[in-house]
Amino acid sequence: MAQINDNYLKLQAGYLFPEIGRRVREFQNNHPQANIIRMGIGDVTLPLAPSVIKAFHEGVDEMSRKETFKGYGPEQGYEFLRDAIALSEYKNRGININADEIFISDGSKCDTGNILEIFGQGNKIALQDPVYPVYADSSVMAGRTGKINANGYFEGLIYMPCTAENGFIPQIPKEKADIIFLCYPNNPTGTTANKQELKRWVDYARSNKSIILFDAAYEAYISEKNIPHSIYEIEGARDVAIEFRSLSKTAGFTGTRCAYLIIPNNLTGLSADGKDVALHPLWLRRHTTKFNGVSYPVQKAAAAIYTPEGKKEVRVMIDYYMANAKIIRESLVKSGFAVFGGINAPYVWANSGRRLSSWELFDKLLNEANIVGTPGSGFGPSGEGYFRFSAFATRENVLEAMDRLARIEF
Amino acid sequence: MAQINDNYLKLQAGYLFPEIGRRVREFQNNHPQANIIRMGIGDVTLPLAPSVIKAFHEGVDEMSRKETFKGYGPEQGYEFLRDAIALSEYKNRGININADEIFISDGSKCDTGNILEIFGQGNKIALQDPVYPVYADSSVMAGRTGKINANGYFEGLIYMPCTAENGFIPQIPKEKADIIFLCYPNNPTGTTANKQELKRWVDYARSNKSIILFDAAYEAYISEKNIPHSIYEIEGARDVAIEFRSLSKTAGFTGTRCAYLIIPNNLTGLSADGKDVALHPLWLRRHTTKFNGVSYPVQKAAAAIYTPEGKKEVRVMIDYYMANAKIIRESLVKSGFAVFGGINAPYVWANSGRRLSSWELFDKLLNEANIVGTPGSGFGPSGEGYFRFSAFATRENVLEAMDRLARIEF
Repeated sequence: MAQINDNYLKLQAGYLFPEIGRRVREFQNNHPQANIIRMGIGDVTLPLAPSVIKAFHEGVDEMSRKETFKGYGPEQGYEFLRDAIALSEYKNRGININADEIFISDGSKCDTGNILEIFGQGNKIALQDPVYPVYADSSVMAGRTGKINANGYFEGLIYMPCTAENGFIPQIPKEKADIIFLCYPNNPTGTTANKQELKRWVDYARSNKSIILFDAAYEAYISEKNIPHSIYEIEGARDVAIEFRSLSKTAGFTGTRCAYLIIPNNLTGLSADGKDVALHPLWLRRHTTKFNGVSYPVQKAAAAIYTPEGKKEVRVMIDYYMANAKIIRESLVKSGFAVFGGINAPYVWANSGRRLSSWELFDKLLNEANIVGTPGSGFGPSGEGYFRFSAFATRENVLEAMDRLARIEF
Repeated sequence: MAQINDNYLKLQAGYLFPEIGRRVREFQNNHPQANIIRMGIGDVTLPLAPSVIKAFHEGVDEMSRKETFKGYGPEQGYEFLRDAIALSEYKNRGININADEIFISDGSKCDTGNILEIFGQGNKIALQDPVYPVYADSSVMAGRTGKINANGYFEGLIYMPCTAENGFIPQIPKEKADIIFLCYPNNPTGTTANKQELKRWVDYARSNKSIILFDAAYEAYISEKNIPHSIYEIEGARDVAIEFRSLSKTAGFTGTRCAYLIIPNNLTGLSADGKDVALHPLWLRRHTTKFNGVSYPVQKAAAAIYTPEGKKEVRVMIDYYMANAKIIRESLVKSGFAVFGGINAPYVWANSGRRLSSWELFDKLLNEANIVGTPGSGFGPSGEGYFRFSAFATRENVLEAMDRLARIEF
């Protein structure tokens, strides 16, 4: 008799974004004339950059000729792409990461969800609250938690609240955490950590032999000089951290699919008999056994963002979204919201200050202004009362949405 | 202290194909002049079909314009592709499978490796021996086995030997199996199961409430009329089977990446408290939480194989490879090998009949004829003495390789 994985039954009804989709569809069905502006799911709206398109076409053309056709590629990713990443994202910024420490994948969602596979079931996992829901949900599905309690927390996970009260800087947990998810720039709050704050975590991880899973999917949006783009800018981080990066937001690849993660060659975990075991070969084994690499033309397209022309084009896209973020920030402040983020991240995190729950605000904005945002409580209990506005929209829509928002009565 | 997943330490040194790669590289380094012919990894060699290339380019062009740009797609895959698959692969063959039962993914390796996540740890898993190594290796990594024993079997798995002695038809296991991996047409043996044989399995699964994981990655190569292409051609299979399909071999997508799996809406497993739980929503939850869909231009390219023109082009490719298989079969027979497969699958499975182990034959062929094949023992202990020749090569290379083989002294 085939038994299901009962851990799935512990999960809440819906993953946040499908639930938003459901409510929006229902509203649209009941109000077919409504011109809904979507600032909910953090999905890019600008087309791929010209250099990326050119390389993408070239990759497809190579697949059309016997002489240049590519079958199975290296599971870790093509060297041309790993070399370009190592140089542009790391070496040029003085960070010591080599191409052979990079694994190309089809998404950071997959990577942050699957990475737990190489770690033992007994590890204690810590995560920010609120944060991108995949860390908690993947932990639940993998049987690394108990049930959800009345406050919306899964038993067995260590939640680290990040709210206006603590300046969105999580406290080092009192219990020992073996695996620590950190997301900076943070999704959903848009806040960041400076070097001193990250150093606290690296030092903690070094003393406790913990591993930091550092999700830097939004690093390209950092505008302030003193904010680290990579955990490896912190001394000693190579001994304790895995880093996740994505082209989804960096270069508009949400529908094209390319990401990567870094496992330093020297990074280790403990085996049951107390030996240090390198993590790089474990992930390589996982990668070669359960994954077959990213589509060749996609990798070719991805490499184009590291050419001089590609870098410029991608910068223009990011500046466009960040100008949106500025408009959103300023409008929300005028409407009396407490506003965070939006300076080093494409997300503006706002509290209405009107005793509305996140979903109440969601329904109000949808009904009265036909704006879709993301309820903060969907990212964790400490997000209650907050709301996430995404800057991934057209300028016209952002202006129109903020205009509508200004006219709402609270 | 971060603990690793110790199950990884149970795995043998290398996944089969990297080990082959290592030996070939070493030989090539020592013999830089050798013209090595690769018939090892089952990787296609013909370029993508013209219709596929055209659609792929169109997909890329859509990504270049604001009006047609695609961000995150539906995680289950675009409807246009799922509709085309449901129609061409199932409905047109009189098989009752709907588009909403199809999940598009980036590979059957990922799917067959990840599918175990929705099943409980206590399930007893059965698999053919020899077979595609991913089923066993993924089971080991997920902690569903004990250690490997002296005969090369992982404790806790039920191995079902398939050899010339039993006509490559596995016996129904004496122990109860909860999850049964079946691969037809079989990789590596190239053999198939007819309707009666598959019906035995469906009946077994129905009586025992087991789930069949049916890997049909090579169904497009079936040439004989009485061989089922899908497990769902067997009455009652919708209640007990998940089916895996891939475009890798069907349409040369090994470097392009697209596959799919079918979970019938009515298929269930048992929860710990004995309730029937539908598997489709569980996998949908897994898919939406840990996966972000396949690249849009790739899905667009994939759909092109279901156009009238695309179907013809893909058929020409398959016929080309199968003509290779015929040449390989006939040459091996002449050289005194016992030969199987190669009629409904692009693999020829051969036993030299000279008391050579699989790896001895591998080294002999590499050294004396500069041919790379795949040692049968790499697919499971019952593959010892056998060797897999892949028909995925150019005609010239196949003819040259068989010519060299004919001149080897055994």
